[in-house]
Amino acid sequence: MKRYVPFRKGEIVSDAENARASIGARRNPETEAAVLQAAAELIREQGYAALTMEAVCKRARAGKATLYRWWPSKAHLLLALVSRSKQEMELPDTGTLRGDLTAYLDDLLARWRGDDGSMPMGPLVRVLYVEAADNAELGAALLEERRDRWQLLDQILTAARARGEVSPRLGAERAKQLAMALPIYLLMIGRLPAPGETAALVDDILPSFA
Amino acid sequence: MKRYVPFRKGEIVSDAENARASIGARRNPETEAAVLQAAAELIREQGYAALTMEAVCKRARAGKATLYRWWPSKAHLLLALVSRSKQEMELPDTGTLRGDLTAYLDDLLARWRGDDGSMPMGPLVRVLYVEAADNAELGAALLEERRDRWQLLDQILTAARARGEVSPRLGAERAKQLAMALPIYLLMIGRLPAPGETAALVDDILPSFA
Repeated sequence: MKRYVPFRKGEIVSDAENARASIGARRNPETEAAVLQAAAELIREQGYAALTMEAVCKRARAGKATLYRWWPSKAHLLLALVSRSKQEMELPDTGTLRGDLTAYLDDLLARWRGDDGSMPMGPLVRVLYVEAADNAELGAALLEERRDRWQLLDQILTAARARGEVSPRLGAERAKQLAMALPIYLLMIGRLPAPGETAALVDDILPSFA
Repeated sequence: MKRYVPFRKGEIVSDAENARASIGARRNPETEAAVLQAAAELIREQGYAALTMEAVCKRARAGKATLYRWWPSKAHLLLALVSRSKQEMELPDTGTLRGDLTAYLDDLLARWRGDDGSMPMGPLVRVLYVEAADNAELGAALLEERRDRWQLLDQILTAARARGEVSPRLGAERAKQLAMALPIYLLMIGRLPAPGETAALVDDILPSFA
C-alpha cells in the first residue's frame, strides 16, 4: 500500500520508492481545482492565445510534473474547463424530446454565453474544436470526453427513442450529431440564439428525428 | 484615365500622381493568383500556423503594400483560398431539393477532403471559423464572403421554395444554416462523410425543410 506524504506544491508525492509512479497517479481534487481556476483566470485576463503552462503552474502553485502529467498541453486545460462546466448540468425529464432537448440546450447555451456572469464557455469550445484538428492526442481526449459529457444527451435520446420519438432509421451517433450540429454551428459563426430562443431552435432541429 | 506601367514585383503601379490610390485600387488577377498560389504552397508545406505574410510576399514576388492592402492578415489569405475554391462550383439543377443539395454538398465535401489531389480545403475552413472568433475584421470579411459564396445555396433553396419544398415557417437564413450545420459540424469533429455518403447525409437534414 502506498503512503502519501502531505500535499506539497500541489503535487502528490509518496515515499521515495514510489515517487515516480505516484506523481499524478491519482488526480488530487484540490490541485485540479486550483489548476483549472488558474487557467480560467488567465484565459479571462489575457485570452487563450497568451496562456502558458508556466503561468498556470505559478498561479496554481502546482508542480510542473503534476500539471503535464494530467494536462499535457494548454489545450487539455481548455478541454478540462469545458468538461467541468458540462459535468454540472442536470438531466431534464419533461416527458418529451422537445421539452428535454430545449431544457438541455437552454442550459448549455447559457453556459456558452456565460449568462450567470461566469466565464463564457462558447469561445473556449470554439477554440477547442480547432486545436483538436492539429493535435491527435487532444483529438483523442476530446473524443473520450465527448463520450462522457454527452451522457446527458445520450439519456435524453434513449428515453425519446423508447417513447417512439426517434425514428428507427436514425442511428444513435447521427441523432447526437443532429442535436448538436446547429448549436455548434451557430456558435462557430457567432450567431448564438438569445435566451428564450431555444425552443424555436429545437423546433427547427426536431423534424430530423421523426 | 489611369496609365499603368508594366507589372513590377507583383504590384500595380501607375504614374506618380495616382500611385497611392492605385496600389491595390483594383486587384490584379495575376498578382492575386500568385499570392494565393504562394499561400497555398506554404500552408501545404508548413501548415497554417507557420505561415507568415513575409514568406508569402517573397514567394509570390509581391509587394508588401499590395499584399496588406488586399489581405490584411494571413487569415484573410485563408479566406481567399477557401472562397476561390467555392467560386469554381457550379449550380446543380436536378429539379429537387434532395438532388440539388446532394450535388452541391458532394462537390463541397470533395473540396474539403481534397478528393482530386488538390489541397484539402476542410482544415482551412476549420481554422478560418476560429480565427474569425478573435478577429472582428476577419469576422466581417467572412460574413461578407459567406453572402457571396453562398449564392449557389441561396439559389438552390430559392428554387426549392418556389417548388414548395421549403416550409414557409423556415426563414432564408435558418434554411441555409440547416443545410450547412451538419456538414460543418462533421468537419469540426473530423467525421467528414466519405464520397457516396452524401445522399444519406442529405436525407438526415431534409426533414427540417418540409
